[in-house]
Amino acid sequence: MAIKLVTTAAELRAESARLLASKGGSSQGLVPTMGALHSGHAALARTAVAENDVVVATVFVNPLQFGDAVDLDRYPRTLEADMALLDAEGVDLVFAPSVDEVYPGGQPLVRVTAGPLGEKWEGASRPGHFDGALTVVAKLLHYGLPGGAAADGSTAAYRAYFGQKDAQQLALVRRMVADLNFPVEIVPVPIVRSDDGLALSSRNRFLSDDERAAALVLSRALRLIESRANAHEPLDLESAVALVDSQPLVELDYFDVVDPVTLEPLAENCKETPFRGEGLAIIAAKVGPVRLIDNAPLFS
Amino acid sequence: MAIKLVTTAAELRAESARLLASKGGSSQGLVPTMGALHSGHAALARTAVAENDVVVATVFVNPLQFGDAVDLDRYPRTLEADMALLDAEGVDLVFAPSVDEVYPGGQPLVRVTAGPLGEKWEGASRPGHFDGALTVVAKLLHYGLPGGAAADGSTAAYRAYFGQKDAQQLALVRRMVADLNFPVEIVPVPIVRSDDGLALSSRNRFLSDDERAAALVLSRALRLIESRANAHEPLDLESAVALVDSQPLVELDYFDVVDPVTLEPLAENCKETPFRGEGLAIIAAKVGPVRLIDNAPLFS
Repeated sequence: MAIKLVTTAAELRAESARLLASKGGSSQGLVPTMGALHSGHAALARTAVAENDVVVATVFVNPLQFGDAVDLDRYPRTLEADMALLDAEGVDLVFAPSVDEVYPGGQPLVRVTAGPLGEKWEGASRPGHFDGALTVVAKLLHYGLPGGAAADGSTAAYRAYFGQKDAQQLALVRRMVADLNFPVEIVPVPIVRSDDGLALSSRNRFLSDDERAAALVLSRALRLIESRANAHEPLDLESAVALVDSQPLVELDYFDVVDPVTLEPLAENCKETPFRGEGLAIIAAKVGPVRLIDNAPLFS
Repeated sequence: MAIKLVTTAAELRAESARLLASKGGSSQGLVPTMGALHSGHAALARTAVAENDVVVATVFVNPLQFGDAVDLDRYPRTLEADMALLDAEGVDLVFAPSVDEVYPGGQPLVRVTAGPLGEKWEGASRPGHFDGALTVVAKLLHYGLPGGAAADGSTAAYRAYFGQKDAQQLALVRRMVADLNFPVEIVPVPIVRSDDGLALSSRNRFLSDDERAAALVLSRALRLIESRANAHEPLDLESAVALVDSQPLVELDYFDVVDPVTLEPLAENCKETPFRGEGLAIIAAKVGPVRLIDNAPLFS
């Protein structure tokens, strides 16, 4: 494999500088992950490699964003397979730090808080989740800064890649970067789906065959909403909710059409009158023991 | 004046790049201020100029860290005099953005929180103050990043200068930079005092002559503690408190000896047995209508 593994921030910075210099590069891309990589992550890596001279992927399972220790323990760790996948996409460096490297003084005292945007939707069922996620993303965005300049002596461009599947995380990361002026461009990458429509997720491996079949109702319900938006029809959320509810293995948590930036529900008339504008249909449900999320951007 | 004023982040970045290139520089220093500059700020600027090729000072009165609007309104604004002072010290650039430039979408949703270290001492009487201060410092540290590379093509060094007078702010900024891995070195600069011992502060201008004379008891009490530390004597905080209390115009808020990093009070025996080690004596008091703080590092 051409890909190189580093485990400390100092190594990462030195390797980034070395690579930018040796490639005569002028840009660096960062792909933050928690490992357990699948084709969705491969799409992030592929996009980053296409757009940047040097690409760093991070693999770090962040204890701060797990509400309970059992969930943290059972989160899959597959570093060798992850590195092979990233290598195949042309990623240069994998930064896989230990918890001690990232949190040398134990839990951080000074943190990032997501504010009201972090309390709704996913945040409602996972209190503190987005505070922990943004705190580690803030750290990773700093770790991943280009270690050297561009070949012409200017500052190297810096981009970080996030999947649209975690729509709320993406909205919050963009808001953090804007609100705190992080020197990075956030690039969203569309959801990758199985042929049958299921959005790829590290959690899908925990679904039984029956549960996996039942889970297809999420993407079907989103496609229903999407087709109505494309046809400028009322979105008729109720009938899409009824479709989900018809599947006994699926317990719906939320299903709504929101503003893609603020995640506030769009006014009711977007659901009863012909849809015009831009929206995001978001859904979360428990399928058997596994909580799944999915979403679809709407344009009309 | 050689100094140049910029008011937008884009101008700041472009000017920083231009200056680094034209000077063949390899380092940039940032001096964040709220204006109303005095000799204490001049010392920050002088230190930054001595240690860096390019120096940027920021002048921004941050609404987020003021608990009440009256306090915000009466905070002195003296940009022309501030620029003259900074120019005399050799500062290259002043970044004085509008509130709209810093907070284009209104108040930021995603913020930095100071955590428990921000709730004690100054934080106890100013709830939310350090959350607001750290949020804007996070923004300023990003704004102030070198706009270009060093002359040799490596990343330019980046340092930010904070006064030791705001000891809790300094401790929190250092903690934020460590906890969130900001790519900057924080450089502390010692307190500057009038000949009579009063620590310089933008607020001193609000003291009447009698109040100013009374305020000297703060630095006197600190010197008492300091001399006992130097002599390896018990610090005898009580007698120093009694000295402060003997001054009727001064209403003591707190006076303690703390760990300089955690700001936790040192164990009682540091006060009753001969002092050994490192500490920070901190004091806050209201003198007439003006709240003043001061501190003294202790080594023994």
